[in-house]
Amino acid sequence: MRHFDIEMSDLKNHLLDMASLVQEIIRAATEGLSKSNLKQVEKVYSLEKKINVKEIVIDDKCLKLIALHQPVSTDLRFITSAMKINNDLERMGDEAVSISRMTKNLIKYKGLKPLEDISKMVLAVENMIIESIKAFNTSDTDLAFLMLKRDDEVDMLRNKVVDDIKNIMVHSSNQEIIQKAVDLIFIAKSIERIGDHATNICEDIIFMAHGKDVRHPKVNG
Amino acid sequence: MRHFDIEMSDLKNHLLDMASLVQEIIRAATEGLSKSNLKQVEKVYSLEKKINVKEIVIDDKCLKLIALHQPVSTDLRFITSAMKINNDLERMGDEAVSISRMTKNLIKYKGLKPLEDISKMVLAVENMIIESIKAFNTSDTDLAFLMLKRDDEVDMLRNKVVDDIKNIMVHSSNQEIIQKAVDLIFIAKSIERIGDHATNICEDIIFMAHGKDVRHPKVNG
Repeated sequence: MRHFDIEMSDLKNHLLDMASLVQEIIRAATEGLSKSNLKQVEKVYSLEKKINVKEIVIDDKCLKLIALHQPVSTDLRFITSAMKINNDLERMGDEAVSISRMTKNLIKYKGLKPLEDISKMVLAVENMIIESIKAFNTSDTDLAFLMLKRDDEVDMLRNKVVDDIKNIMVHSSNQEIIQKAVDLIFIAKSIERIGDHATNICEDIIFMAHGKDVRHPKVNG
Repeated sequence: MRHFDIEMSDLKNHLLDMASLVQEIIRAATEGLSKSNLKQVEKVYSLEKKINVKEIVIDDKCLKLIALHQPVSTDLRFITSAMKINNDLERMGDEAVSISRMTKNLIKYKGLKPLEDISKMVLAVENMIIESIKAFNTSDTDLAFLMLKRDDEVDMLRNKVVDDIKNIMVHSSNQEIIQKAVDLIFIAKSIERIGDHATNICEDIIFMAHGKDVRHPKVNG
């Protein structure tokens, strides 16, 4: 194996580690929410630090790889896509932190019962992440294309969640319930964003493999 | 001027054009909101298309520059940062589209009067963008550092806006008002996000100039 190939495979492993950390932080955030579990919320904050370190390490690795090996074509696309995927993974972690901040508010109020559709959103998004990472690891662009469609399902669930929350608010003038409802809206928004980042990653995977930009279908014709 | 320098200056101009488009789309979105002006809302959608094309052109330019000229050090950092800045600018445009989508809902209801603090948020964020672009154009890292602090101001305003909206919701069981209030919450969130993207751009400018990663201060010590 050439030195360059070893370095590229090392970069891939770093990204897979980063993805595992991000899966872990999302699980901690959503379990913190569904079980009102403060331990999981604290875990989110410690995982965030690890993710931040990892992001810088990966970015640095990418720059060094380009500077030292001057890759072209597929290899260059792999490295610049890795930088983008790294960025989207880190921002997924930020959303997990936002969810935990809201969860801390929610735990203060008794009778916290997150909506069932939020759990469905979480399941759909977790599944998107698993499949996106699989698509990245096996360069499976068909799977990546499939995930682009899956995002619509998350958006539909988000609309349903927001409608249900509006209904709760219409029928309540209780300050605590309104507070809780607004926090739940922000949580639904964060979960939706995680799905958006997974979508971005899939677009990068497709670009990486084919050099075909699928970010804005109407632009590409 | 070397061919490479001409290409680099061309890349910078493309990014400045992209930034102008993004300023324009944000102005259209926020004027659409503040003046309930559907023409401005429509302008947002046509500007989004231009921004999407520009994003792909800039990314492509960056890849070609790396592949053909194999830059190292500051030049390489400039190009990879340009890709990131490009990405953040495009996502600012996405937020302008979200604001316009909510504005369309809001225009349906009579008596739309966006909160004064939302206008303050808009002003603060527009100012952040102008200064960030100036910092990029003149490689002014002091200005970029200053902007990182400015984001706290936007977050404070956002909290105030959300608190005011919660108050409105506590005192209303009118479905239209609740609907409008939730739309305003999403708008406040989008404006905050635009500020976050401006912050990301400033971090990239600092990294570009000094090779110093300021994304996660606690990590860098």
